Amino acid sequence: MVDIATRVYNHRWKMDPIVRSLIDTDFYKLLMCQSVFRNRPDTNVTFSLINRTTSVRLAELVDEGELREQLDHIRSLSLSRGESTWLRGNTFYGKRQMFTPEFMEWFEGLTLPPYHLEVRDGQYELTFEGKWPEVMLWEIPALAVLMELRARAVLGHMKKFELQVLYARAMTKLWEKVERLRPIDGLRIADFGTRRRHSFLWQDWCVQAMREGLGERFVGTSNCLIAKNRDLEAIGTNAHELPMVYAALAPDDASLAQAPYDVLSDWHEEHDGNLRIILPDTYGTKGFLDNAPDWLAGWTGIRVDSGAPEAGAETAIRWWKDRGEDPRQKMVIFSDGLDVDKIIELQAQFAGRVRTSFGWGTLLTNDFRGLTEDDVLAPFSLVCKAVSANGRPTVKLSDNPRKAMGPEDQIERYRRVFGVGEQEALDVIV
Amino acid sequence: MVDIATRVYNHRWKMDPIVRSLIDTDFYKLLMCQSVFRNRPDTNVTFSLINRTTSVRLAELVDEGELREQLDHIRSLSLSRGESTWLRGNTFYGKRQMFTPEFMEWFEGLTLPPYHLEVRDGQYELTFEGKWPEVMLWEIPALAVLMELRARAVLGHMKKFELQVLYARAMTKLWEKVERLRPIDGLRIADFGTRRRHSFLWQDWCVQAMREGLGERFVGTSNCLIAKNRDLEAIGTNAHELPMVYAALAPDDASLAQAPYDVLSDWHEEHDGNLRIILPDTYGTKGFLDNAPDWLAGWTGIRVDSGAPEAGAETAIRWWKDRGEDPRQKMVIFSDGLDVDKIIELQAQFAGRVRTSFGWGTLLTNDFRGLTEDDVLAPFSLVCKAVSANGRPTVKLSDNPRKAMGPEDQIERYRRVFGVGEQEALDVIV
Repeated sequence: MVDIATRVYNHRWKMDPIVRSLIDTDFYKLLMCQSVFRNRPDTNVTFSLINRTTSVRLAELVDEGELREQLDHIRSLSLSRGESTWLRGNTFYGKRQMFTPEFMEWFEGLTLPPYHLEVRDGQYELTFEGKWPEVMLWEIPALAVLMELRARAVLGHMKKFELQVLYARAMTKLWEKVERLRPIDGLRIADFGTRRRHSFLWQDWCVQAMREGLGERFVGTSNCLIAKNRDLEAIGTNAHELPMVYAALAPDDASLAQAPYDVLSDWHEEHDGNLRIILPDTYGTKGFLDNAPDWLAGWTGIRVDSGAPEAGAETAIRWWKDRGEDPRQKMVIFSDGLDVDKIIELQAQFAGRVRTSFGWGTLLTNDFRGLTEDDVLAPFSLVCKAVSANGRPTVKLSDNPRKAMGPEDQIERYRRVFGVGEQEALDVIV
Repeated sequence: MVDIATRVYNHRWKMDPIVRSLIDTDFYKLLMCQSVFRNRPDTNVTFSLINRTTSVRLAELVDEGELREQLDHIRSLSLSRGESTWLRGNTFYGKRQMFTPEFMEWFEGLTLPPYHLEVRDGQYELTFEGKWPEVMLWEIPALAVLMELRARAVLGHMKKFELQVLYARAMTKLWEKVERLRPIDGLRIADFGTRRRHSFLWQDWCVQAMREGLGERFVGTSNCLIAKNRDLEAIGTNAHELPMVYAALAPDDASLAQAPYDVLSDWHEEHDGNLRIILPDTYGTKGFLDNAPDWLAGWTGIRVDSGAPEAGAETAIRWWKDRGEDPRQKMVIFSDGLDVDKIIELQAQFAGRVRTSFGWGTLLTNDFRGLTEDDVLAPFSLVCKAVSANGRPTVKLSDNPRKAMGPEDQIERYRRVFGVGEQEALDVIV
């Protein structure tokens, strides 16, 4: 029996929206948003989309009208009652009422601010300007929309069984990864793949496959909507945009040097336990840790998000020991360019020495490498970053010079202020 | 929107029938049935299920109650009006009214005769007795039911994503075969996989994948129901049961020696063109061809269904040349234990020398080898054969002594009558 009503309803759609909820975003965005809403609500920021994989000429692949439709659709969204109830009533990281009534009231009234879209050199220049707490919520949906529109552009040329086999191959590929992870004792792994996912439905499938295949070893997803729908833990803490904006706002070199610690000082007031995770690499991990105040050594863990992850973890372990902390009580979260081989290696190297945890992103939710001719569905390196704050440019260095962002002269200044020496250049996988 | 009516309707089902139509069978069964209905309608035959893969203990895997439900369901089937219209009105092998009004009237009134089921040594002894035209129609549905019940017994223990990944792997595996076949010039290939299919839905998927992937090189399916539903050619000619029963009925050695030719003489009267395909191996290909009357050399082709297929095709080519025929005008149909490597080899060896054609069976519709632990879904060698006719045992020799069937003394007698010498023993794959 055909459900005629469903079919007629579906035919009436003008488009197939990619992002259908304001909580189809990463959990850490909401945590950071609340922190910004509390501490720096009036900061004006500009976020900008940057495609680091220039060989993928997005503006030639993706129709501008379709992109605008998707972005306009996101601007039409507001928090639903059920989403609001979930955010207000759910327990996150063991804590009730993670989100304050003031923040929730603001979020319930929010629609995302306008966007600015131009085409240059075959790429989209997509920028968002306005109050930081509003603009920052564009990052994840903007990335997800562009990733999925690029996939749709490719998929639109495929026949019915080709499509079915494509997804069969992708499922097989992911499941083989799950099977390789299954025997690993003490594994703790989460989905961090929202921003560069192949599509929403595919991410949702991946998350469910991870849950069935890994059981308790799969600790949750960064995606709030999927966490809500699938009754999973929402996972995430904080990201580079906090120190980047705080740093840009610093009036002089002395306060610039202090900015990353100011971020964590604000965070320290707001969060405890497993939410106290240091992201030390924004302006170089080594300098950050060398100059860190002692109270930071009491935090729960460190997230390693650039550079060689083994080196980052060893640096963290040494630092904890130097500060009189027991690394075995500390957590290292690996979240940069992970795939199964690397996860297995890192777990073998660090299990027992620290509490390890893995935030698996692009190669969980978008590993379509090798599944099409000319690899036209391979993931690519698209980011959406704060590029200025109150008119002042932002800078990111990280532990990999290929990930550095910002005006050249400011990069030099930041390298000087933060005492960043030689860095090993590593390929940016995704 | 959930289609509530469909869901309620589905919940009401007592079982999920495997065979839902009397034309969910091989086309050659209907052609042979019409021939038998015309030439030997009153012959009493016994068909018996034989599991040549004794390591698969069917009676321990498959519940007897479920098996009886499925078989009883098949006995409740009769030809629907649409099926009858399709058989009466369709063009088969370029011919209208392939099935006579007399045969169709009989078929429309048919329900399958009772079955007899016992368990012995972990195997089902399933036999069918009665008039040949009725009993013979049990063969394909009985095999399909047992193959699918065995698969269901295994699948019943799998979790949701395990199942999805199993089929993803099977789809990927089949599609890789299709992709290997796609570049082969002049390929003509058909689905012959009904009897040992993994399941009806899987066969249907395989057929559609072949059509999309191979286009015109996929010439059709032996399955009448799928041919009807998918608007494909129904493919098939005749099988061993005709010479086996004719031979069993022969009163003496002289008429025994003549029996296989009597079969084809009857066929000659009824069919022409691409339906005139010799199946020479029932009692040894070499002797059959050596002693064949000249009019048989005028037939369109030969089906090679046992022994080394290269040797069978070379024998056919030599025979045609000896009889003054041009092999390039003749067709060789390979149909025994085929898989992609063998198809590619045979096509490379024989393209241009004869018109080649491939009837791809078990390893098209049931290649689940390597997809589960302990290979519990690997296909196995189940057959359902005429074992006696009017109380006399049947015998099959074929070109592979491991496929020989019948009482030992009768096998010896047949080997003597048909002058079968040394035969190469080959593993029976499926």
